[in-house]
Amino acid sequence: MNVALVGVTGYSGMVLYQLLQQHPEVATVRLFGHPDSQPQPLMAAVSNFIGDQTLIEPLDAAVVMASCDLIFFATSAGVTTELATPFIEADFPVIDLSGDYRLQDPETFTKWYHKPAPATAALQQSHYGLAEFTDAARHNYIANPGCYATATLLGLAPLVQQHLINPASIIVDAKSGTSGAGKKLATSTHFSQTDENLQLYKVNQHQHIPEIMQQLKVWDASVPAIQFTTTLLPLVRGIMDTIYAKTDATAEQLHAAFAETYADSPFVRVLPVGQLPTLKEVVGTNYCDLGISYNPVTHTVLVVSVIDNLVKGAAGQAVQNFNQYFGFSATAGLQLTAVMP
Amino acid sequence: MNVALVGVTGYSGMVLYQLLQQHPEVATVRLFGHPDSQPQPLMAAVSNFIGDQTLIEPLDAAVVMASCDLIFFATSAGVTTELATPFIEADFPVIDLSGDYRLQDPETFTKWYHKPAPATAALQQSHYGLAEFTDAARHNYIANPGCYATATLLGLAPLVQQHLINPASIIVDAKSGTSGAGKKLATSTHFSQTDENLQLYKVNQHQHIPEIMQQLKVWDASVPAIQFTTTLLPLVRGIMDTIYAKTDATAEQLHAAFAETYADSPFVRVLPVGQLPTLKEVVGTNYCDLGISYNPVTHTVLVVSVIDNLVKGAAGQAVQNFNQYFGFSATAGLQLTAVMP
Amino acid sequence: MNVALVGVTGYSGMVLYQLLQQHPEVATVRLFGHPDSQPQPLMAAVSNFIGDQTLIEPLDAAVVMASCDLIFFATSAGVTTELATPFIEADFPVIDLSGDYRLQDPETFTKWYHKPAPATAALQQSHYGLAEFTDAARHNYIANPGCYATATLLGLAPLVQQHLINPASIIVDAKSGTSGAGKKLATSTHFSQTDENLQLYKVNQHQHIPEIMQQLKVWDASVPAIQFTTTLLPLVRGIMDTIYAKTDATAEQLHAAFAETYADSPFVRVLPVGQLPTLKEVVGTNYCDLGISYNPVTHTVLVVSVIDNLVKGAAGQAVQNFNQYFGFSATAGLQLTAVMP
Amino acid sequence: MNVALVGVTGYSGMVLYQLLQQHPEVATVRLFGHPDSQPQPLMAAVSNFIGDQTLIEPLDAAVVMASCDLIFFATSAGVTTELATPFIEADFPVIDLSGDYRLQDPETFTKWYHKPAPATAALQQSHYGLAEFTDAARHNYIANPGCYATATLLGLAPLVQQHLINPASIIVDAKSGTSGAGKKLATSTHFSQTDENLQLYKVNQHQHIPEIMQQLKVWDASVPAIQFTTTLLPLVRGIMDTIYAKTDATAEQLHAAFAETYADSPFVRVLPVGQLPTLKEVVGTNYCDLGISYNPVTHTVLVVSVIDNLVKGAAGQAVQNFNQYFGFSATAGLQLTAVMP
Repeated sequence: MNVALVGVTGYSGMVLYQLLQQHPEVATVRLFGHPDSQPQPLMAAVSNFIGDQTLIEPLDAAVVMASCDLIFFATSAGVTTELATPFIEADFPVIDLSGDYRLQDPETFTKWYHKPAPATAALQQSHYGLAEFTDAARHNYIANPGCYATATLLGLAPLVQQHLINPASIIVDAKSGTSGAGKKLATSTHFSQTDENLQLYKVNQHQHIPEIMQQLKVWDASVPAIQFTTTLLPLVRGIMDTIYAKTDATAEQLHAAFAETYADSPFVRVLPVGQLPTLKEVVGTNYCDLGISYNPVTHTVLVVSVIDNLVKGAAGQAVQNFNQYFGFSATAGLQLTAVMP
Repeated sequence: MNVALVGVTGYSGMVLYQLLQQHPEVATVRLFGHPDSQPQPLMAAVSNFIGDQTLIEPLDAAVVMASCDLIFFATSAGVTTELATPFIEADFPVIDLSGDYRLQDPETFTKWYHKPAPATAALQQSHYGLAEFTDAARHNYIANPGCYATATLLGLAPLVQQHLINPASIIVDAKSGTSGAGKKLATSTHFSQTDENLQLYKVNQHQHIPEIMQQLKVWDASVPAIQFTTTLLPLVRGIMDTIYAKTDATAEQLHAAFAETYADSPFVRVLPVGQLPTLKEVVGTNYCDLGISYNPVTHTVLVVSVIDNLVKGAAGQAVQNFNQYFGFSATAGLQLTAVMP
Repeated sequence: MNVALVGVTGYSGMVLYQLLQQHPEVATVRLFGHPDSQPQPLMAAVSNFIGDQTLIEPLDAAVVMASCDLIFFATSAGVTTELATPFIEADFPVIDLSGDYRLQDPETFTKWYHKPAPATAALQQSHYGLAEFTDAARHNYIANPGCYATATLLGLAPLVQQHLINPASIIVDAKSGTSGAGKKLATSTHFSQTDENLQLYKVNQHQHIPEIMQQLKVWDASVPAIQFTTTLLPLVRGIMDTIYAKTDATAEQLHAAFAETYADSPFVRVLPVGQLPTLKEVVGTNYCDLGISYNPVTHTVLVVSVIDNLVKGAAGQAVQNFNQYFGFSATAGLQLTAVMP
Repeated sequence: MNVALVGVTGYSGMVLYQLLQQHPEVATVRLFGHPDSQPQPLMAAVSNFIGDQTLIEPLDAAVVMASCDLIFFATSAGVTTELATPFIEADFPVIDLSGDYRLQDPETFTKWYHKPAPATAALQQSHYGLAEFTDAARHNYIANPGCYATATLLGLAPLVQQHLINPASIIVDAKSGTSGAGKKLATSTHFSQTDENLQLYKVNQHQHIPEIMQQLKVWDASVPAIQFTTTLLPLVRGIMDTIYAKTDATAEQLHAAFAETYADSPFVRVLPVGQLPTLKEVVGTNYCDLGISYNPVTHTVLVVSVIDNLVKGAAGQAVQNFNQYFGFSATAGLQLTAVMP
């Protein structure tokens, strides 16, 4: 199996390349850049890939389709829209880590992304690949979920699917490391500004909110808008969501719902009653760890959901979708070890 | 004016000593340790006080009362109870940074602190010194609020006092730097464990919760228990609370309530509409910065409250109470500059 | 006394403004930007100066000279050259935190700064203000030393002045926090790149090397080029130099030389034998702490020199020079407290 | 192949267990604790090994020798001495990550470790397993090098072996992340103390110095004592050495010596002329990256050597020795990916 990867110079692309290189079913990973770019060896583009002379070639759809079995886009918002059309038209398999094809409604896309939406037909052909709840097997265009969306949806799924909470009471206090903001230089991720600091950003305006809502409504059409706060942490890797909702369920019911929902999910670990995850226990892995704490005085359930934003929240989930698409073992290429300590 | 300080070797005590040394109304700061301790120079006890030969003497209540005008206790929970009695009996002025005398109900104390409570009479004589809302002037025993309690109460005060929110919907997602956990070595504050990590702890069980509830009920007796989550951050100084509540008020009403409440408070800065504070903007200062964000879709108000836990959340507020007690200018000794960058 | 400050939006300028605001001899600090800039309130230019409406005005030399007693330039390399001429021509007092006028030889300047040098006459009129070893009193143009130069020169002074080491053996392994690189966004100071990392840069090519050499040669004309390594640390504030040299002196002689040299220097603390400074003990202060360790087996002396790069290495030393120029107390405006913890 | 591991609860042991679990030649890893300990599941001993029920059994030499092919000791100094004797007596293969058997001279051991040395016969039977320069194939007791020793020896080997430097001029300025200090709580690794700080420790007294000297003298008996400084960094993983020495060689000769020495070493990457490594490029991997910078003015060579202290400096090198001992491929189980970003 040969695969193509566009966007290896971004953080998600870097991690995806690392994963694909070690994937037992992948023979070759061909790297591509923008069609207008000059070819250059990977080590010249990303200095940490010391000695890796693999050429990043200008993207040529015909070349990809002739030589590869699937293409991954790990490109910025807007770029996939620009480049994916020939693949969509040819029904060539695509796994897209960008947000371009996640929202089925073009107006919603434009409202949250402040960009023109891709063609409606293409949007509707796209499959939202939340790997634990969908099956990429029969879909040629897989829109890989956003990092915040992954942590949030996995934390809310049992509660919403089983109607265990008051959906109008959902509050998501989400925190992310700086790698979620990518390589692009910005004041908020300048070390002297970020270190020893917490900064909120895009409160109730983060572009992952509409894909969360889209999926929640699949599970329960009555879920109204949620409160969604995003905070930038002084660390590189990882997302932690603390999710609150009012509930009439008991602690046992809540925990049982999570245990049952994820009984067959190798990458979601529901922690024992009384235990909440730390962020770092998942860094470097494809796990989403979930802890549940019920407060009988306030009738509030707290779900703590942690992921590595670049693995489970991006490249790792893309590999899950890749495995599903081709019918490989669910954990192929994903038996990763946590960074300890 | 001469003052005594017990507990200079702890983090709050260290900062309090720094503030008192620069206070325009303080001539001498005498340092005391446990009555059973051996005298030693400050520089031997806290190596960062390079060259400071001030002696830390064993505490002797008679000596303090004969030579000083007030005593500060920056001691651990339980220690003040052990040492404060002679001062209370003599009605000698005390500002107590520990939690020992904050709760007026001894049963509540025992439940949350897992220790025997001080004598009931002493508890009831104590004044909870939330400096923006109380006046230490006529009180000889001032219980300085806890760091989380300060950030939370200042963030909730206008909402609760003016009945602008549904009090049953209050959720406080509080995050603190490691200095809040003090000098005591622990696995959760071991660098290899803390760095690049987030760790929740004492969820709904933090000992600052009852003092928050005690004060909220002063403002509105109908406030039920709140949801209170505490997370340890990979940074040293500062607390950020994100506080959520359901409201029927408009954005303008909410902002106006904060602006009005704190119009005469030199240390509370209500940020303009649309602006939320960063943690670091208050580090090194006695400010509490408050930002308010209203979500008209979810009818939820988000208040972001940031303080330096060792200044506004401990030593700085103690100096505010000291200033009130003696009628000094509110900002005496507290014109501090933020750490920039 | 009224002073002018150009460049408050940079890190050194921010700290200098904070110091000048609290300086007992300064009535007013007027803020200026580039002559072509639009006036704007400080809080709009630097969001952390919450509520500070002081106007940053376009620089006008005539206005400054009519209303102020001295001007500080906290501007980037090259900008002072562009703006300082009218003040030099008028012999108006200037303290310049940039590197533009530190080197008396224009060719050396051009070689290390890769920019055209200021006029030779102006360079020679300039006084290198290493505050412990020079006296700014009779000099109208004071070139404030660079941060690395300050830490290095204070660490080497007793050894070089008293010919205690083989000058050909000097090795300086210098490390700096990111604030030394300023506000300008760069890949090397992007949080995801800097955090959990060490990066060397400008090895033997740092522009502070020639000013170090210029001053060392004042003390001992025979000192040849030194080895000078600079490493970027994953922290914001502070410089630590570890300085090595071969010596024939004994441990006692070495320590005595430091103690004697700095006996009357309020801002240089020579630590007791056997003690080496930590970086953080000086952060927030104008101290340079020096520890000396002699290895009798290798006949090598190790000097550890730590400063806060923005205080002693920039704004604080500028205030020292300001105090010297006007004959104020050496410590006026500089009784700062360390950040603890 | 079945292997035994004593000490999985320490940082090196944790990483070694992760590596062995993924090693293609290892069927089972049996975990052992102190002979006096109670059996417990791994997840109870190290909470981050979520869900891993592997039992940590009390060590029983007979059981190990009957069921396993080799035993790894990842135990603290002194503990291996206590536990290894039956294995040494039986000539059962041991790879020992502790420092107990690295020094062949018992007096040197006692001087630097402040503990009684193991039996002389056992010491002399031990093989110092610096994997790039020795071959573990014919040795039943392999003393795995210390982390600082690995970074230093790989950085000095070409220079010392080929007599390219003045050995009396060697200076090693070594810096390490906190994981090198292990799990044991200490003030110097308390987050509030370590963060935003640099702390020197054990200057010229680090216990890795004698093993460095022992190996350097194998290469060139004339090498005298070296200057060795150790600094604790505010980060978790990684060591960077900056190594200085006077040389008469040219830049080309120096670089060629490194390139040639490591031409066949898959885990040592000599960077191109003009490029110096960053610390993070090796974190998570078994690489030692080396950069060489020659200063023609001071005739000084600077070698920058970086490793992940827990991988190349401990567990990874142990796997290299394991591979050598059994004749497996040099890179078996060690094709690890760097943490990016």
